Amino acid sequence: MESSQRDAVPAGRMDTPTTDAAIRDLTAAFGNRLVTSQAVREQHGNTLTWIPNQPPDAVVFPQSAEDVQQIVRICARYRVPVIPYGTGTSLEGHINAPFGGVSVDFRDMNRILAVHAEDLDCVIEPGVTRKMLNDHLRDQGLFFPIDPGADASLGGMAATRASGTNAVRYGTMKDNVLAMKVVLANGEIMTTSRRARKSSSGYDLTRLMVGSEGTLGVIVELTLKLHGIPEAISAGICPFPSVEAACNATILTIQSGIPVARIELLDALQVRASNAYSKLSLPETPMLLCEFHGSEAGVAEQAQRFGEIAKDLGGGPFEWATRAEDRTRLWQARHDGYWAARGLRPGASALATDVCVPISRLAECVTETQRDVKENGLVAPIVGHVGDGNFHLSLLLDMNDENEVKLAKKFLERLAERALRMEGTCTGEHGVGQGKMKYLPAEHGAPAMTAMRAIKQALDPFNLLNPGKILPTK
Amino acid sequence: MESSQRDAVPAGRMDTPTTDAAIRDLTAAFGNRLVTSQAVREQHGNTLTWIPNQPPDAVVFPQSAEDVQQIVRICARYRVPVIPYGTGTSLEGHINAPFGGVSVDFRDMNRILAVHAEDLDCVIEPGVTRKMLNDHLRDQGLFFPIDPGADASLGGMAATRASGTNAVRYGTMKDNVLAMKVVLANGEIMTTSRRARKSSSGYDLTRLMVGSEGTLGVIVELTLKLHGIPEAISAGICPFPSVEAACNATILTIQSGIPVARIELLDALQVRASNAYSKLSLPETPMLLCEFHGSEAGVAEQAQRFGEIAKDLGGGPFEWATRAEDRTRLWQARHDGYWAARGLRPGASALATDVCVPISRLAECVTETQRDVKENGLVAPIVGHVGDGNFHLSLLLDMNDENEVKLAKKFLERLAERALRMEGTCTGEHGVGQGKMKYLPAEHGAPAMTAMRAIKQALDPFNLLNPGKILPTK
Repeated sequence: MESSQRDAVPAGRMDTPTTDAAIRDLTAAFGNRLVTSQAVREQHGNTLTWIPNQPPDAVVFPQSAEDVQQIVRICARYRVPVIPYGTGTSLEGHINAPFGGVSVDFRDMNRILAVHAEDLDCVIEPGVTRKMLNDHLRDQGLFFPIDPGADASLGGMAATRASGTNAVRYGTMKDNVLAMKVVLANGEIMTTSRRARKSSSGYDLTRLMVGSEGTLGVIVELTLKLHGIPEAISAGICPFPSVEAACNATILTIQSGIPVARIELLDALQVRASNAYSKLSLPETPMLLCEFHGSEAGVAEQAQRFGEIAKDLGGGPFEWATRAEDRTRLWQARHDGYWAARGLRPGASALATDVCVPISRLAECVTETQRDVKENGLVAPIVGHVGDGNFHLSLLLDMNDENEVKLAKKFLERLAERALRMEGTCTGEHGVGQGKMKYLPAEHGAPAMTAMRAIKQALDPFNLLNPGKILPTK
Repeated sequence: MESSQRDAVPAGRMDTPTTDAAIRDLTAAFGNRLVTSQAVREQHGNTLTWIPNQPPDAVVFPQSAEDVQQIVRICARYRVPVIPYGTGTSLEGHINAPFGGVSVDFRDMNRILAVHAEDLDCVIEPGVTRKMLNDHLRDQGLFFPIDPGADASLGGMAATRASGTNAVRYGTMKDNVLAMKVVLANGEIMTTSRRARKSSSGYDLTRLMVGSEGTLGVIVELTLKLHGIPEAISAGICPFPSVEAACNATILTIQSGIPVARIELLDALQVRASNAYSKLSLPETPMLLCEFHGSEAGVAEQAQRFGEIAKDLGGGPFEWATRAEDRTRLWQARHDGYWAARGLRPGASALATDVCVPISRLAECVTETQRDVKENGLVAPIVGHVGDGNFHLSLLLDMNDENEVKLAKKFLERLAERALRMEGTCTGEHGVGQGKMKYLPAEHGAPAMTAMRAIKQALDPFNLLNPGKILPTK
């Protein structure tokens, strides 16, 4: 990585693939678990955003880590790209096949291999979804906290470093993956770490793989941290006169050490959408939706202290609910936020994006963004995981209106640039995929980009693993 | 990283250094901030364990990131190793110079550059120690929780992925470094991440650098997460009939979601040592020393619930203290554990080591280890960060007794093997350095070792950065 060589280092080399030969060998090995029908291929490309659908050449359904090794070895032999696929809920084109290749669908690798209740961990295959896991764990009083909204596969969540509403208390996938087994580009299985709760032994290969979006290895097993289901949960909702007041209440809540489990902002437009969609009658002003976990006395105290903070900042009344059905109704409205948003402009496409900034800059970032939306005649309600400084927009677009699409694309660029200007990141939790590659040099700087390319090249010299994601392919 | 090439990939190449020329250029640049006296050089090699003292050829005291860039560039020109140095408290020979080279002492880079109270983060130079930082933060009601015992530099703590007594609640350095600036082997400054609380943008370079022990880059700036000083802190001590009962109480405490801030095991021998050294009169039986952080009501509830768990397992009485002076007395005894241990065998050398296993195996691992100590006629009191499954031994040795030293070395090998057999790690928090390199292949397996070597080679092709640590140099 000599300075003078920097620009000459590609993110892995690409040879011309001999796809037909690879598919022939894969068919010999996997029979009807190798599918090449156009419908199935298209389902395995991006379908959720304006990024074009780039289907793979084939889709294969492995049933074991050894199957994945075999797939990778066959693909490596013919220089054919390998694209891991979980549930297809990623938003930045992670599953697309811009250079063709084989989509590896983990549908059939969905076994829960072990639950170690005393150690608060479990070992699973990557196709297990978060809801499947939590259904399995409930009887043992345990849960896995990361909740990105979609019922995504845990392999996909690890690959994209997912987080969501609980991250303010429980962290992101980075904090909740203890170890993984990963098939490398050479077909070997690497164990990234062991089941001990912490280690200072060697480079942190687990964290290197979390968020690498399938570009450094294919996850075939995960060991995840679990948590005890809290004795008590309470949730509540609190209106604020402004986004700034709501953000300041969040800052004070966290500074005070109140261990809030979720603290979600809905802007006035999102509240309007949710009122209509979820048959609520909330005042159409910025809202914080909170959840507290702990003992009965603990959650009562947390809720009371939060209410006092909110009141001091001109917010309130804070209405809280410990009854499960009331909580469910509130959170259902939050989870339905995307569908509610779409209701604001029936027939429009909804394009979801996210950025994340230091929390002290959040109010400014949201307010500037709202102004930008308005000035450009766009419609884009905002929800945010404000405890982390992370917020989402649903841009409601008429994709047939070229002018509107052009305006929206420029708006997205300004949004990413705004987040970077405020010491933030172009994506708090959706990942890079294809959609955000162009922001990475501005975000990370040349030395970090060079280091990422060097690592990619070291681990995947022929650029077989999900090429064209995170790092541009030269 | 083709399979067939694996064994041919060295961890970076080493050319013959031209040390005199490097020292000449460094002297021209740094004047009397470049020191070559034997006493200073020896102080900058390992002095704390039986690993031999291997002094660097020179010690340089940079005052800025640009100074460090210049040092690395000069050393790179002459292929001279660069060895970062914080406070010299590492225990596995991390600061030794087995191939000679220049020790970079961060004594003069100890400025606190910014404290962002609203964001709960700060930006510091790597020579700031944890006590300096906490003294600076106290007036703002903030603290940095990681406490490895020694008043280590935060650069060193990040480099070795340090943790300590608070990790069960606040995590390790991996969880508390938001971003770093790192001088790479080519002299460029890489920013590993931004100040946003979370990101899913690109490879996790921050976590790759944390725990890399100076072998991938030289840390010149850190952005650290901070926490609000809890409104209330209570501490207490609780005897148990056995190590197993104490470990089971720890497991239940964590499973119940009691957010214990510290939970430390002292075995009966350590209690005896502490009674003598710290003038206490504790029953000489395994003890748990706990600390709870929260609101006044919260810590009272936590302590009460812990007391109930302890009682159910035959432990108790649990005596707790919210008064600062009582807490201080208890924790002083814990912090003086090392000196107390040495008092068990005056004149002996104390060799500290650590391993970490899944908590369900901890009692078994500690008990087997105690038996092993006894059977070999060794003396080695045990303290443990039991919430993480991590424990430490202080082996008290007569270093002049060859037979005893031989016995101890074999014992250490069995200890590491025992931890690995129980799905643990050869080091929970001390790091690899030189002392634990030999255990890494058994812990991580060949594919992970190959990946680590490939990453090292990609980022430091001439093996300039702390060579001979973590990965053997061929």
